[in-house]
Amino acid sequence: MSVHLYNSMTRTKEEFKPLTEGQVGIYVCGPTVYGPPHLGHAKSYITFDVLVKHLRGRGMQVRYVQNITDVGHLTDNADSGEDKIQKQARIDRVHPLEIVDRYMFQYFTDMEALKIAHPSFYVRATQHIGEQIEAVQILLNKGHAYEIGGNVYFDVNSFPQYGKLSGRVLDEQREAVRVEARSEKRNPRDFALWKKAEPIHILQWNSPWGRGYPGWHIECSVMSTKYLGETFDIHGGGLENMFPHHECEIAQSECVTGKTFARYWVHNNMVTVDGVKMGKSLGNFKTCRDLLTRHSAEAIRVFILSTHYRSPTNYTEEAISAAAAGLTRLAVLKAFLETASKGTEGTNAVSCDISTLCHDADRQIGEALDNDLDTPGAIAHLYTFATAFNRLAAQTPLSPIEAREGLAVLKRWGEDLLGIVPVSAVGKGVADVEPLMDLIIELRKELKTAKRYDLADKIRDQIKIAGFTIEDTREGSRWRRL
Amino acid sequence: MSVHLYNSMTRTKEEFKPLTEGQVGIYVCGPTVYGPPHLGHAKSYITFDVLVKHLRGRGMQVRYVQNITDVGHLTDNADSGEDKIQKQARIDRVHPLEIVDRYMFQYFTDMEALKIAHPSFYVRATQHIGEQIEAVQILLNKGHAYEIGGNVYFDVNSFPQYGKLSGRVLDEQREAVRVEARSEKRNPRDFALWKKAEPIHILQWNSPWGRGYPGWHIECSVMSTKYLGETFDIHGGGLENMFPHHECEIAQSECVTGKTFARYWVHNNMVTVDGVKMGKSLGNFKTCRDLLTRHSAEAIRVFILSTHYRSPTNYTEEAISAAAAGLTRLAVLKAFLETASKGTEGTNAVSCDISTLCHDADRQIGEALDNDLDTPGAIAHLYTFATAFNRLAAQTPLSPIEAREGLAVLKRWGEDLLGIVPVSAVGKGVADVEPLMDLIIELRKELKTAKRYDLADKIRDQIKIAGFTIEDTREGSRWRRL
Repeated sequence: MSVHLYNSMTRTKEEFKPLTEGQVGIYVCGPTVYGPPHLGHAKSYITFDVLVKHLRGRGMQVRYVQNITDVGHLTDNADSGEDKIQKQARIDRVHPLEIVDRYMFQYFTDMEALKIAHPSFYVRATQHIGEQIEAVQILLNKGHAYEIGGNVYFDVNSFPQYGKLSGRVLDEQREAVRVEARSEKRNPRDFALWKKAEPIHILQWNSPWGRGYPGWHIECSVMSTKYLGETFDIHGGGLENMFPHHECEIAQSECVTGKTFARYWVHNNMVTVDGVKMGKSLGNFKTCRDLLTRHSAEAIRVFILSTHYRSPTNYTEEAISAAAAGLTRLAVLKAFLETASKGTEGTNAVSCDISTLCHDADRQIGEALDNDLDTPGAIAHLYTFATAFNRLAAQTPLSPIEAREGLAVLKRWGEDLLGIVPVSAVGKGVADVEPLMDLIIELRKELKTAKRYDLADKIRDQIKIAGFTIEDTREGSRWRRL
Repeated sequence: MSVHLYNSMTRTKEEFKPLTEGQVGIYVCGPTVYGPPHLGHAKSYITFDVLVKHLRGRGMQVRYVQNITDVGHLTDNADSGEDKIQKQARIDRVHPLEIVDRYMFQYFTDMEALKIAHPSFYVRATQHIGEQIEAVQILLNKGHAYEIGGNVYFDVNSFPQYGKLSGRVLDEQREAVRVEARSEKRNPRDFALWKKAEPIHILQWNSPWGRGYPGWHIECSVMSTKYLGETFDIHGGGLENMFPHHECEIAQSECVTGKTFARYWVHNNMVTVDGVKMGKSLGNFKTCRDLLTRHSAEAIRVFILSTHYRSPTNYTEEAISAAAAGLTRLAVLKAFLETASKGTEGTNAVSCDISTLCHDADRQIGEALDNDLDTPGAIAHLYTFATAFNRLAAQTPLSPIEAREGLAVLKRWGEDLLGIVPVSAVGKGVADVEPLMDLIIELRKELKTAKRYDLADKIRDQIKIAGFTIEDTREGSRWRRL
């Protein structure tokens, strides 16, 4: 029962040992709120949702911090281009903070709809301008940064370990071509810590270097260490952030503190469409909201979790439906077990077979997740459990206590942790009542024609229990809520 | 058609003329997120929701800014006591930002449940620490503030107009008794702009006066003027904030800018329980979440809006039910009109009576709201309209175009603006289907007993249209979703 994680920094699967036993600090790069969240976001945040829930399930106390980038994320990955939020605000002719709020709320709503728990708390870049300025000042004082005309750059040559995470040390020449627009830098690989604001730029602040706004990377260095300590356990994010974003975070943070930054680096792979990365900037993205009109949260989650987080997920509509095809089995088993667990008859003993089955499932699913979050394995074990449980239950009658034991397995892993059991697919549930009420009205009409007034009256009386009333008018019967 | 508002500053009802024609800036004091929102919050935010919607309905473009106090609001109204968020965090043994996020999300969720639109954007105190420090520095430079041992106080004697909003100029002696704990102040009425942080205080920042955190009032001065301009149109809030909070805001802002701060001050009165103000600190509050388990959003809204915003609202369970008793009438009329509006038969002309009725309702309701947001008057006119429309419709058959005209009135005022028409009370809607399905299963059983297999089969077939299936087993019939 020890969790192992693939650490991008060491390029090996390692046993996860938090700095303080039983207490975990994790920071995950959150969204830049200038557009609706898409399936690529869903993959990243479902992955870390499951990771955090599993660590908690293993008895650890987890502080999970996620940032909201609400300023200064430029339109391309270099230091040039326009701020993404500013650009969207200009298009929509509103204040940039209206764009931020619109998409921040959409992010919150969509993540909730996907059954992703909120982190312990969110931290916003604009909430930490002062701390970012202080960090830049320290880097200047220590000789790791230099200022030119209101812009402050990190001097990559001052940190020889730059590239240790991504291994992109030799890429210097290629990078040089890509970023040469900013010719005032001493070195093409140097990156912005603070940027001079043009008058058109609405979100800007005073600093020792004049009015400006923070560079793309400094917010994560500052906020992660502020809330989790100078050295902390896990830094998560999408693989596409490994370079340059995470590489820059390491350089900044370790130069400020002189200590190791994050101890474990966990990167989820991307979502592709026809083999190409899905992303807003690429225009080939499927929004979560759109997908949720056609698929349940459970279907999207099982689709994402059926691929290991370090492998790419290729999106097609059919792939989501195929991944979700087996979920009804889990829902039907759950409904069956819920009914069976309610009785009081039968023995209090649990048969050896049921007991073994449940314990095995707990162990196998837990071990799969311990093994670098092997969610495809965990899902396979859950299905195997469901099939075997059904087979046993068909052979001998199930006692309530046995049903409860099976239900606990299903709930612990399928519902609470993976979030793939359709909660309301069977039995109790909320739905559009209109077709049902129309059917009932029609039945009552036929019963009256057949002079079965007893049944017709029964409908009228019973329907009140359901919170409706039927009114007989000259034009026929109408129903409405009480 | 011109909006009049009671301006607390001039103590008169005035025609509302924004600084820039057609464009309105409004700032409303938002919640301190250390506990669940209660009915007192609901009254305030429903009031300003209706005000903003009405101004927009009158063709104005409104930027509505609301703050989230996520640091530094002390436990009592003086400058002593413990930070409320810090205190709650200590009780719950979590980081203060976890408390902030928990209750901020509860605030967002509950306000949405009450059909209150989000403001244009929220602004958080912790997002504006730098700006608050800058404002305090300006006040120090201008001689309106003084520093003692890491605390900075506003010198009330330096602003002779202090008290102009609340008229509490002569209360000095009484105030003196209440706040004498902070004896380092030059004058008992002086208030904190910046407070020295004790080591126990988790939320603290660097400042020219050492580590600390902002005082209770400065965030609103800084954030309102930053996003709405040094002089802006409307400042709203609860009456209990008039003194000292708004008085302090005026002093700070006008001393920083040398200009008039807010032009119109709009204060909603409180919610009382047995004549005593409802509030978290008083322990007699009813949370929105609790009320929403027993009452619909429309019921709570009509209860709040049936009292003028400048009068106190006395809470009892019965008063909410009584206020909501008439709502079904509106819902029934709406359902009737929706059905009637769908046809194509009939003339395209609108009868003179219907036309007059609709135009009169538009005018009367609009004028009521123009008149210092007379929502009780607006609701009364809406009911009168509903009654008169029903009477007319009973006399002559309604053409679809006439129905649509009536529907437009109901929708514009009852639904979009006041938010009191139960949207799904009649006709389409989502609800718990379990009692309905159980009733249908039972009916089918009786029909089979009566050998009406035709009807029993009809139920089984038709139910599929509603998305359910019935399975006949040896133990009887069961239903489940398809």
